[in-house]
Parts: sequence; structure tokens; C-alpha cells
Amino acid sequence: METSTAQPPAKTVLRVAAISGSLRRASANTGLIRAAVEICKESIPGLQVDHVDISELPLLNTDLEVGGGFPPAVEAFRAKVRAADCFLFASPEYNYSISGPLKNALDWGSRPPNCFADRAAAILSASGGSGGSRSQYHIRQVGVFLDIHFINKPEIFTKAHQPPNKFDDDGNLIDPETKEQLRKMLLSLQAFALRLQGKTASSEQGN
Amino acid sequence: METSTAQPPAKTVLRVAAISGSLRRASANTGLIRAAVEICKESIPGLQVDHVDISELPLLNTDLEVGGGFPPAVEAFRAKVRAADCFLFASPEYNYSISGPLKNALDWGSRPPNCFADRAAAILSASGGSGGSRSQYHIRQVGVFLDIHFINKPEIFTKAHQPPNKFDDDGNLIDPETKEQLRKMLLSLQAFALRLQGKTASSEQGN
Amino acid sequence: METSTAQPPAKTVLRVAAISGSLRRASANTGLIRAAVEICKESIPGLQVDHVDISELPLLNTDLEVGGGFPPAVEAFRAKVRAADCFLFASPEYNYSISGPLKNALDWGSRPPNCFADRAAAILSASGGSGGSRSQYHIRQVGVFLDIHFINKPEIFTKAHQPPNKFDDDGNLIDPETKEQLRKMLLSLQAFALRLQGKTASSEQGN
Amino acid sequence: METSTAQPPAKTVLRVAAISGSLRRASANTGLIRAAVEICKESIPGLQVDHVDISELPLLNTDLEVGGGFPPAVEAFRAKVRAADCFLFASPEYNYSISGPLKNALDWGSRPPNCFADRAAAILSASGGSGGSRSQYHIRQVGVFLDIHFINKPEIFTKAHQPPNKFDDDGNLIDPETKEQLRKMLLSLQAFALRLQGKTASSEQGN
Repeated sequence: METSTAQPPAKTVLRVAAISGSLRRASANTGLIRAAVEICKESIPGLQVDHVDISELPLLNTDLEVGGGFPPAVEAFRAKVRAADCFLFASPEYNYSISGPLKNALDWGSRPPNCFADRAAAILSASGGSGGSRSQYHIRQVGVFLDIHFINKPEIFTKAHQPPNKFDDDGNLIDPETKEQLRKMLLSLQAFALRLQGKTASSEQGN
Repeated sequence: METSTAQPPAKTVLRVAAISGSLRRASANTGLIRAAVEICKESIPGLQVDHVDISELPLLNTDLEVGGGFPPAVEAFRAKVRAADCFLFASPEYNYSISGPLKNALDWGSRPPNCFADRAAAILSASGGSGGSRSQYHIRQVGVFLDIHFINKPEIFTKAHQPPNKFDDDGNLIDPETKEQLRKMLLSLQAFALRLQGKTASSEQGN
Repeated sequence: METSTAQPPAKTVLRVAAISGSLRRASANTGLIRAAVEICKESIPGLQVDHVDISELPLLNTDLEVGGGFPPAVEAFRAKVRAADCFLFASPEYNYSISGPLKNALDWGSRPPNCFADRAAAILSASGGSGGSRSQYHIRQVGVFLDIHFINKPEIFTKAHQPPNKFDDDGNLIDPETKEQLRKMLLSLQAFALRLQGKTASSEQGN
Repeated sequence: METSTAQPPAKTVLRVAAISGSLRRASANTGLIRAAVEICKESIPGLQVDHVDISELPLLNTDLEVGGGFPPAVEAFRAKVRAADCFLFASPEYNYSISGPLKNALDWGSRPPNCFADRAAAILSASGGSGGSRSQYHIRQVGVFLDIHFINKPEIFTKAHQPPNKFDDDGNLIDPETKEQLRKMLLSLQAFALRLQGKTASSEQGN
């Protein structure tokens, strides 16, 4: 939406719901999300990342849906997903696929009416081995049914256990190169989300 | 277990740990497992199916592993997996992939030392759409890391919502054709498990 | 192509390069492409489907690239891909994956500079079994590297060997229901391609 | 092949049909196959690797099957596949999946009667990026339909473009570490093939 002129009064801020597939306190993937929050605050106007916690969700069981409603933790999660303009999934690779907790969250969010539909998304993974390259395509296959539009480039596969140290003991991202990759991914996500909404990143970010 | 008569003194019974990816009370997938239990009792000597419940597992979080131990529900699950000779996974397809609860169980079982290693397995799915054909290959990819040897044939994709009715309201399998498919799958699993153990189904089953 | 009347002077026609993964003369997949050509002519203004033949491509071998050039058949194929606004892949499922000839064509088109980049696409499959549901996600994974943006809905899996007869002996589509699915897919592809180009189907199609 | 002396009159030699997915003269993947041939000659009694060329196969087109026969190049390829005890696939990753020429060869070999059925196999890949980790699981999915039994461990993903140099300019493997990985893979393939045949590597290799 190309407002141009003076102060952009109705500057749109795109909200990114960010989900970590790891529940560990010192998770590198959750650390990537914290870094994304900071990067947007510091240097990406028009994009805001919110970490959506999934640790309180019960294991998916549709018997828990009573009277057309969801358990409170599920309802709260779904509301945050619905309110987002786009998504950032940061997940370890467990056994060459999606982490169990992330899949569980995706499944709850997909229950009709599907909360993910027709939004842009990006995937990050910090993991051992090849950095998560096997799991990301499983998430993309899930996204076909969820009707998510993933950016194709850049892809990020953070090899968490290879030197140099990329995270401190609390899982905070300390590697400048990975930060720069992450910044580029967020810009790409923003541009794609705006493109899908019929807007352009440049006009949005103005100045 | 149907040993027959005199001679085979060391008749081996293979134990199948069967895991349902659905936690619903009336799940068709759990119904397939109940049917597998019965079929073995009735007509497959040397093969015994045990349903392993996964509904009490916490969401995977390695912070819960303290002092080298697992939470009690996880420890109990892992003991059952370790004790099995082979596996039967019966799972719905959720969003074109593994169900969240099943992935969560596989992840807990994989924590070192991996409880699934070097065993045979088969996959069943009752689901809508194409009966689960998209999710089964995700399970197989997971199985590479878990070092599981899957049978290739037969594959079973039970189209749960297509006529004729295959399950009653409690999820019990009532379709003779699916029962016969299931019986063939169990025989194939038994033969492959014995082959991997350096035995043969015929010599095992004697007579 | 159905420009209508006077005013819309800059009416854009989107060109779809359609590739069939089967080289059989009476291929149902090539028949789906012929049907797509007709449907656009008859009822989808602004969208034109061109069948791009891949039968003359050599097996991929980069030793054939000499002096920065490609063999003539490859060059001709790449020019057609580059000229397209979006893509339609119609392919049988061979052995649970992409057909060899289609993969070969995708590989030639991907040689730098990648001819597929940043365009919308849709996938059709006519096949036995589950209609190609296993292979389409392999094509989507390939598309991540090729930077293709696939529509998510509708998906079409034409069960070629199930009644009613959907194709005549020459592979022509004769099933009205599949034609209607195909028409919806083409409309979805057009809308998504325009959306990615910052246009809208409605404004494009005028009146 | 090191048959030893007197007694073991029926010493079995397992024959491995090795297929390279790259047709380049100086292909690293074909180089891995040449290295496998040598390693078996030098240090793995009972295992013999034969390189099966696929460069002369036409693009798959079942119209070429006339009178129940195949074109001569296809027939020759199929005969070599049928005669093998197990398989070694060495392939680059093209666009996150199987190379076109390899898929084409697998498709020809799969035409009824399927020439690959019920044999063991291993997968190698030399490639850029993550060494082929995305494509190997596509090959495994194809193998389900082909009824191939893949070893799970070790997996080899040779990062062809990372230091140290692993191949010379002709594609010959010169890296001792990769050679040792390859030797372990061949031993694992041999052991699994024998296990599936109801034999054991130790008894086979005797002394």
C-alpha cells in the first residue's frame, strides 16, 4: 500500500509470530528468536517479532475439544497465531524431522479453522550435523496443507556444534555472521509478506 | 502364544511394540492396533502385539533429563520399546506428516541410548484424503536415524472416511478386507524380523 | 487470448510454460496440459498455456556445456522457460517420485543462470495409486532451490486408473469434474502469479 | 577377490552394481565408485563392485517398449541390475533431489518385472552444500516402491567443495578419511546383504 508523502501516519507494522521447536531453557533455537526480536527493534522498521511459547500445549487429542472450544492453553496459542502477519519457525532437527513439540503446535494451530492460512513464513534451524537441512523440508510439506507461503531464500542452517562458538551457555546468539544471515532472512520475509499483501517493502519502510 | 505341540522347545515369540499416533478414545489407528493384537492371537503363531501407550509422555524437553535419568513416564515407555523385537506404527496423517504425539514419542525413544536401533518395523495409517501416504515417508526418514528397518510391502493406507465403513463408532476395525491386509502386513513384518535375526519364519513357526 | 474490448490498453497476458513429465504419445499428463490450453482459451482471459516439449533434451551432463553455451535443444528449452510468467508441471509419479524426464528437464533449466527463478507454479499429476501424492512434494522440494513459488490450493491428484474413465485412448481429458478442478487450479495460479507481480486478477481481467 | 585356500568351496562373492548419477567425465561420484572397486579388491574379500554405466539410456518413454521388449541399451542395463546382489548409488544432489540421469535409470530398471527387488543397497553422495543430504532421502523413498533395503549406517555425504581437496582433477578420490568411510560403508553393505540372504559376513569370509 503505497502511501508516499509525508509522515506515514498509518505505517504498517508486520507482526511475526515466532515459534521455537525446542523447549530447553538454553535452546539455541529460542536464542535465534531472541536475536530476531532484537534485530527487528534495532534495524528493521515495520517488522516486529513476538516469541510464541508452545511449552504449555497438551499433546494433540481432539477429544479435548469440547463444545467447539479448545483447552485454554490451545486457545491462547491459536489467538496469537491468528493475529500474526507472518511466521518464523526456529527448530532443531530431531531424528531428521520436525521436533515433536513443534509438530504438536502446528497440529493444534491447524485445527479448523486453520490459523496459519495464507501467510508468509521463514524457517531457521540450529542443529548438529548438517544444521537441520533434513527437517526443514518436512516443515515445508506441512505448510502446503496449512497454506503457508515460505520464502525460498535465504535458507539458514546453523551448525550449532561447529566452531566458532555461535551461542553462549544461555543460548544467546553471539556470532556476527549468523546475525547478519538472520537479518537478511527477516528482510526477505518482510518483503515477501508485503508482496503477498499487495504492498512493497520500500514504500512501507519509507525513509 | 500358539506353540503347537511337542518338538519346538525353543520356539521364539517375537514381540511387537505397537504405537498409535492418535490419542483419541475412538481412534481408528488405535483400533487397527487392537485388531493386530487379535489377529496375532488368532492366526499368527510366534508374533505378539502389545499396545504401548504414549499419552502420558511430556513434550520433549531434555532439561527434564536429570542425573542421566528420564521422567518416570518416559522411562517406562523406553523400557517397552527396548524390550520389543520389532515395531508397528499406526498413525493418522496430520498436516501431511507425522502426528505430533507420535513424533514426540519417537524423539523420547531416540534419546541416547536410542531404544529403536536395528529392529524391523511396519507402518499403518488410517486417515482421510489418501490414507496417510504423505506421512509414512516422513516416518521412514526418521527411521534412518533411528536405525529401523522397515518392510517395504505391503503398505497400508486405510481411507478412513470412504465407504464402506471400516470402523465402528468406537474405532474398532470391522472391515474384512482391511483385516486381511493387516494380517499380510503382520506376516511380512514377522518374516522380515526373523530374517534380520538370522532365522526364518518357516522354521520358527514349525509345522 | 481474450482481450475484451476497448479500454484496457495494457492488458497483461500471463504465459504459462507447461511441462509434461511423460513422453508417451497417449500420456494422460500431456492430455491434462492440452486440456489446460483449451480451458484458458475458452474461459480464462489473461492466461495462456504453452506446452513445452522436453523429449529432445539429452541426459544432463555438464560436459555438454562448451564455451558457456548449451546444446541447441537445451538452449531452446531454456529460452521457453525464461520467457514464461509461471509454470504448470503435469507429471506421472514414477516410483514414488518425479519422473526421470521431468527431473532431467528441471536440472537443465536450473543450470546458471537458473531459468525458473521467482515465478509461480502449480502441479498436476495423473497417476495410478494415490494419483501422485508422493511425487508432488519432491517437486516442491526441488522448487525451493529453483526459487519457485507454488500455489498450495487446489492440489490435483488424478487417479488415472479408477472409474469413471477420465481420459480417452489418446490421453485426452474427457472427465468434466477433472476439467473443473483444472480450471480452478489455473485461476488460482493466475491469481497467485499476479499477486506476486504486484497486480490483482480482478484489475487485470478488467470489467 | 581373496578366496583363500582349500575348504570353502562355496565361498560366495557378493556382486555390487554401482550406479553414478553424474555423467561428467571427471565426476567425483564416479570417482567414489572407482575407489569402491579398488577398496573391495584390496581389502574386502567376498565383495565385488562393478560400475554400471547409465549414459546410453534413452529418456524413459514406455512407447519404446515394443513387443514386450526394451531398447538394447535398456535391456543391457536391466540385465546388469538383475544380476547384482546389492547396489551402490553414488550421486550428486541436483536441485535438492535425485539427479535426472539417476532417476531415469531407476525408472527403466523398475519397469515390470522390477529388477531391483529385495536387495540391499547403500547411498553415497559427493556434492556441494551439505553433501547431498537432501537427495538421499528421495532415493530412499523411491526404494520403498523398488523394494530395496538400504543400510542406515554409515551415511556418507562428501562435501566435494570444502577443503581439504578430496578429489583430483579427474575425479579420483585422494582423501584417506573419505576412503576409510567408504570402506566402512562397503563392509556394512556386505554384512547387511548377507544378513538378508540368511548368511553372516563372518562365516562367509571365513578365516
